[in-house]
Amino acid sequence: MYPRGWYLPGSGVQRGNILNSAGAGEPLTPGYPAKDYMFRIEQNETDALARIPVHPIGYSDAWHILNAIGGPAAPAEWAGGLNITYRLGPGFDSASWARSIKMNIRVRNERRDIFNTVGVIRGRVEPDRYVIMGNHRDSWTLGAVDPTSGTAVMVEVTRAFMRMVERGWRPRRSLVFCTWDGEEYGIHGSMEHVEEFHKKLASRAVVYINIDTAVRATYTLRPRISPSARQEVREATKRLPWPETVPEGTTMYDVWRKRSPIDPNDADTQPRISLLGSGSDFAGFVHRVGVSCIDLSFTFDPALGVSNYPLYHTGYETFHLQADIIDPGFKFNRGIAQLAADLVRGFADPVILPFDLMEYANYLGVMRSDLQAEYGTDLANQGISSDSLDSAIQNFTDAAQAFHSRLQAIDKNNPFEVRMFNDQLMQLERAFIDPLGLPGRPFYRHTLMAPSKHNKYVSDPFPGLTDTIFDAERSTDPAPAWREVAKQMSIIAFNIQSAASTLMTPA
Amino acid sequence: MYPRGWYLPGSGVQRGNILNSAGAGEPLTPGYPAKDYMFRIEQNETDALARIPVHPIGYSDAWHILNAIGGPAAPAEWAGGLNITYRLGPGFDSASWARSIKMNIRVRNERRDIFNTVGVIRGRVEPDRYVIMGNHRDSWTLGAVDPTSGTAVMVEVTRAFMRMVERGWRPRRSLVFCTWDGEEYGIHGSMEHVEEFHKKLASRAVVYINIDTAVRATYTLRPRISPSARQEVREATKRLPWPETVPEGTTMYDVWRKRSPIDPNDADTQPRISLLGSGSDFAGFVHRVGVSCIDLSFTFDPALGVSNYPLYHTGYETFHLQADIIDPGFKFNRGIAQLAADLVRGFADPVILPFDLMEYANYLGVMRSDLQAEYGTDLANQGISSDSLDSAIQNFTDAAQAFHSRLQAIDKNNPFEVRMFNDQLMQLERAFIDPLGLPGRPFYRHTLMAPSKHNKYVSDPFPGLTDTIFDAERSTDPAPAWREVAKQMSIIAFNIQSAASTLMTPA
Repeated sequence: MYPRGWYLPGSGVQRGNILNSAGAGEPLTPGYPAKDYMFRIEQNETDALARIPVHPIGYSDAWHILNAIGGPAAPAEWAGGLNITYRLGPGFDSASWARSIKMNIRVRNERRDIFNTVGVIRGRVEPDRYVIMGNHRDSWTLGAVDPTSGTAVMVEVTRAFMRMVERGWRPRRSLVFCTWDGEEYGIHGSMEHVEEFHKKLASRAVVYINIDTAVRATYTLRPRISPSARQEVREATKRLPWPETVPEGTTMYDVWRKRSPIDPNDADTQPRISLLGSGSDFAGFVHRVGVSCIDLSFTFDPALGVSNYPLYHTGYETFHLQADIIDPGFKFNRGIAQLAADLVRGFADPVILPFDLMEYANYLGVMRSDLQAEYGTDLANQGISSDSLDSAIQNFTDAAQAFHSRLQAIDKNNPFEVRMFNDQLMQLERAFIDPLGLPGRPFYRHTLMAPSKHNKYVSDPFPGLTDTIFDAERSTDPAPAWREVAKQMSIIAFNIQSAASTLMTPA
Repeated sequence: MYPRGWYLPGSGVQRGNILNSAGAGEPLTPGYPAKDYMFRIEQNETDALARIPVHPIGYSDAWHILNAIGGPAAPAEWAGGLNITYRLGPGFDSASWARSIKMNIRVRNERRDIFNTVGVIRGRVEPDRYVIMGNHRDSWTLGAVDPTSGTAVMVEVTRAFMRMVERGWRPRRSLVFCTWDGEEYGIHGSMEHVEEFHKKLASRAVVYINIDTAVRATYTLRPRISPSARQEVREATKRLPWPETVPEGTTMYDVWRKRSPIDPNDADTQPRISLLGSGSDFAGFVHRVGVSCIDLSFTFDPALGVSNYPLYHTGYETFHLQADIIDPGFKFNRGIAQLAADLVRGFADPVILPFDLMEYANYLGVMRSDLQAEYGTDLANQGISSDSLDSAIQNFTDAAQAFHSRLQAIDKNNPFEVRMFNDQLMQLERAFIDPLGLPGRPFYRHTLMAPSKHNKYVSDPFPGLTDTIFDAERSTDPAPAWREVAKQMSIIAFNIQSAASTLMTPA
């Protein structure tokens, strides 16, 4: 337990926002930048802001309350981790019936200015192509892990690139370094930036590399990455050492894939990579605009059974926690800085962008198999065919394969040819963006992934489809609900077909 | 009167659709291409399809009915052009009370396949940049004017370019020639194309040049053009002869500006050019995607007082009408073919795209003045400031000016620099597209222009703003209605600011 370990003392309290903005950004200007001149709705016109005052308490305080609850014992699966008998109430038990709880909660909604800081190293050859790296700057309290472990990485990476610039180096493409404000309040800084500069990002952003909680533990790498950028991350980890001497291997890739295998029974397994959910500043880039994103961090062994590092968002996120308990010697902080810097150069400098579209094709196949395994029978029972989806994935796969074949044969000294292929690579992720948004969530527009409705940190694949299946299976009026499923099936098939069409020879 | 003149015989009937799709394309798949696999809503789930059977009749038939109507005389402004006393009814007069009218109307909604035909001349240097020319192929009956005068132009233009290709010529950018199907039913062919290939068009389309009713009369030119493409059209008309010998001058520009002056009292007046409304195939390109558009035709003297050529959409649109009555010798058909071909080359071949952004800045100023003249007092009375709009227009103007200054100084032998500036020029129109659409019209997304709600052939400027002002002034609950006006003001200001930001130095 802190200060000797990373577990939370009983008086500790986890902060966090309970905003439900569904990707709309600052809640009073949904979809538009919250500039001074922008029209603001009233607080009672949005569902994003909580109407019931809430406040977290520490588990020592909770013990006193829960231990005094009366009534029958709660079912086993409702019991928490405190050493008491969990009871259902109502009210306190007979020994405590006269007790009362008084909480003084001061909650107020206030309008405050926030500030993003953006630095640019102008590209030598293609200044209008942006390789963006970002991290938020605000924290709930001291924030030594979230976000300062990432901030240290950002500062080191920018320092290294500026040293190179001083020596006369320039990247081929522009590097853009962003420190975001107001992330903890609801990803406001980056989302407002995305809203304000949507058009520029849509036509110019190559990739957004997010650093937030860079090192929450040192067991394994935990990246969330757009499919077509995955191979480049794997290649980078093959070039870099694991920061410590461990039995699993010497490269970052080796240790990562052995500690986070996709298939533990396969000696040649690839390491696990997730889709992009939300909960950090990449969300606006990928879900609103369709910029390919990479989110990097080192994390703990899932066998620990904790949902996050236990001191997450508490007053115990001190320098001592990061420097002495989580990453003594800052070896993993350095490691992730090396990885981030390698990726920034990996997207900024090569003549041809290192996107691998076959990764996307293969991942679509994985998503398709998962869909079949989970919902295949239900869909068949409802007479909803997946033929259009299969056909679209096949067309996309063929188009990606043919694209990479043609790419092998291009004249790299022909700038227009280079730019044409690079634009197709860069724009691919945009093709999955539907301006009409997902059902009921107009600001999540990526049709292949979205923050899960039940856990915003992870992503649901085919969210328009799986959300409507979920609803249909619980609907009291199933016929129209299943029609909505059929509609979403065709919309996803269309977006994949549309993406395939962008990969064809342009003329 | 036909066959001796272009006026409509009494038995003639004007066809036309009464679809109300508000830019949604084929009505059962709003927003998505009507492919076989696409989910279709039911006919009763859309407001686009008429529910009351209607049928036009000729004025000779109408005479018999209107002349027999009883009751008091109608107010003068309700009277039409027939030589009768217009009466209010109800029912027939005493001499005709026993008469009845029997109409057999067979109306059915049917799903039919339509086919667009698209031909491409691959660009030599920038094959992934598209200069698109299009015209619809379907007609209500014989369609010699609408669309065949345009089709003749398309055929001639493509023939000329193919002759050049056979001689070894290639354009710098790709030329795309489209003949659309199903335009008369609701602009279906081109809109479905836009829906299917939205992403490719958004990133690659330079300009869309529309030919439809190319020559409805030979009095003056009647182009509808995106502001930044206007100067190029004026320049082209200065290079081309007016097809006949007339006193106003020898060039197309001279006659056009004298017969359609913006200011008849100004000897140096420019010719009149309109914003892009709808009613033809450019609608999807400009209102959904934000592709700069040019729509060309020769038309009649407005002093004639007809709303269109009188045989529009009737069975009298014969070859005789076009060849002997409207354009004997096809001189104006040839003239518009010359103009179209000149514009195709004008956008396809120069190293730098011929968009003039100061034209856009100036036009924003004109729109702003018109807004002030018409609604300035109302806005002031409601306390709605236009400062944000003024500031945005000023910023846009400054950015456009600085952009063109930098453009003067670029190295035209640097392909990346050329492409960077061209992309900014090409993407400018896209910056005005709001993915959330106009209030109540999600598929019209251009915030500066939209088909008027009252006349789909013309455009309303600042439609989100002027529509909500119109509603607010008639609202029984004015407070929220004027708040919506204030919101639209800020959205338009934002979109203009966003456009300005795309014109800054990219990095």
